[in-house]
Amino acid sequence: MDTRPIGVFDSGMGGLTAVRQMLQLLPGEDIVYFGDTGRVPYGGRSVETIVRYARQDVAFLRGFDLKAIVIACGTVSTTALHLLNSENAIPILGVVQPAANAAAKATRTGNIGVIGTKATIRSGAYETSIRTLLPTARLTAKACPLLVPLVEDGRVRRGDPVTERVVAEYLAPVKAAGVDTLVLGCTHYPLLRDVISDYMGVGVTLIDTGEQAALAAAELLGGQNKLNDPGRTGERRYYASDSAEDFAATASLYLGSDISGMVERVAIENY
Amino acid sequence: MDTRPIGVFDSGMGGLTAVRQMLQLLPGEDIVYFGDTGRVPYGGRSVETIVRYARQDVAFLRGFDLKAIVIACGTVSTTALHLLNSENAIPILGVVQPAANAAAKATRTGNIGVIGTKATIRSGAYETSIRTLLPTARLTAKACPLLVPLVEDGRVRRGDPVTERVVAEYLAPVKAAGVDTLVLGCTHYPLLRDVISDYMGVGVTLIDTGEQAALAAAELLGGQNKLNDPGRTGERRYYASDSAEDFAATASLYLGSDISGMVERVAIENY
Repeated sequence: MDTRPIGVFDSGMGGLTAVRQMLQLLPGEDIVYFGDTGRVPYGGRSVETIVRYARQDVAFLRGFDLKAIVIACGTVSTTALHLLNSENAIPILGVVQPAANAAAKATRTGNIGVIGTKATIRSGAYETSIRTLLPTARLTAKACPLLVPLVEDGRVRRGDPVTERVVAEYLAPVKAAGVDTLVLGCTHYPLLRDVISDYMGVGVTLIDTGEQAALAAAELLGGQNKLNDPGRTGERRYYASDSAEDFAATASLYLGSDISGMVERVAIENY
Repeated sequence: MDTRPIGVFDSGMGGLTAVRQMLQLLPGEDIVYFGDTGRVPYGGRSVETIVRYARQDVAFLRGFDLKAIVIACGTVSTTALHLLNSENAIPILGVVQPAANAAAKATRTGNIGVIGTKATIRSGAYETSIRTLLPTARLTAKACPLLVPLVEDGRVRRGDPVTERVVAEYLAPVKAAGVDTLVLGCTHYPLLRDVISDYMGVGVTLIDTGEQAALAAAELLGGQNKLNDPGRTGERRYYASDSAEDFAATASLYLGSDISGMVERVAIENY
């Protein structure tokens, strides 16, 4: 048993979709979450800037004595995971490998779609991981730069004409390719699950990267006998680089529960 | 005559629409531009964060010996101008007062619309300035959080179905109010001039905040006899907090001219 907390970070709020899964899967774990809301979004920035920000995010979390870090951010996972792992002794998990495993398992035809931010699609990381598992996979990847702004603006519901139009535009080539599995390669995208699922149709399996990362963390720590007693109630601490009040006010949309008064502000540029 | 450069800054690329006007109006002036592309957009962030970032932007520019600073950013102008002026001895001009003057002059009916980021509309700064000039003005203000992401994604042209739909949604209440003048309260918005103008109709005068700020700077410095010889060719230097190459590649969309090789990167968090 290792009672140290698990660190989780994202460019902003999206990573809370992974935390939501962790709260269910790993109720006994202490979790420290950092959302870089003062500098969100990362997905359109250069590799150099994403790496610099990700190193600061990890440096902040390393101020806690952690047993593992989950990068609950598609952009950082696809752009900086290997570097962060080479620089840190504790295990750091990204969302790519768990999602690639799930996609390779879920597909019947080997025809798989991947959507993500510009940085994520530029990296080709999901494709590389899926091809390693399934060399014959046929992959269709599409950058969707407006989806994070839409989610952050709360425009996630069925019937929103702008969201439906944007989703249809981005997914048209993915649907036309006939994929049977679609990797939602950004932790913001599960909030658009209804709209995406309506467009793609019931035959297409959606892979939720936050959920898969939470499952992978549970498996890794369980396999190493490092999980807390699940009967225990874990402590959760949330940190953000912009207003703590704004973070708490929006968090319930992602987390499904109220965390008012549980958020603190961090000057991330000092790390 | 004062041969020192004029500093200009914005959260990102939008302020280049003001620089474009300054290059025409003030060809003899040296200009130092800073775009905070590593932390753009500002418009959805808290007042505290916008103020912190704006102070760093000014601190960076103050490293040059300047005769004035133009805040070519609606969000900073509406949220931090008074504070920045109280903290700095050189004149700092925002976009609000010049745009309010132009709107009060342009309107025939006193019925004026204002659009901007969330932070800008939350501040009420345009409304306050216009009401001081025109106490009977009828004002309709509307936050347009998706317009900056659309412009940054290059989706600015007539016929883009998403851009047209978003513009129509935001402007519907402004149009319904029967305004004859519309303040484009963010320096990104002039790139959407065609789409906005098509929707509002030819009878509505659009106030370009970057253009008005450039005119105001020319008037202020001219009145103080601080302008360079206009026959001189001014030097321009561009700085960005994310990739210099990415900045140069996108700049021509805003500036109408190529600035490859003229951009340097700045670690703005150190200021």
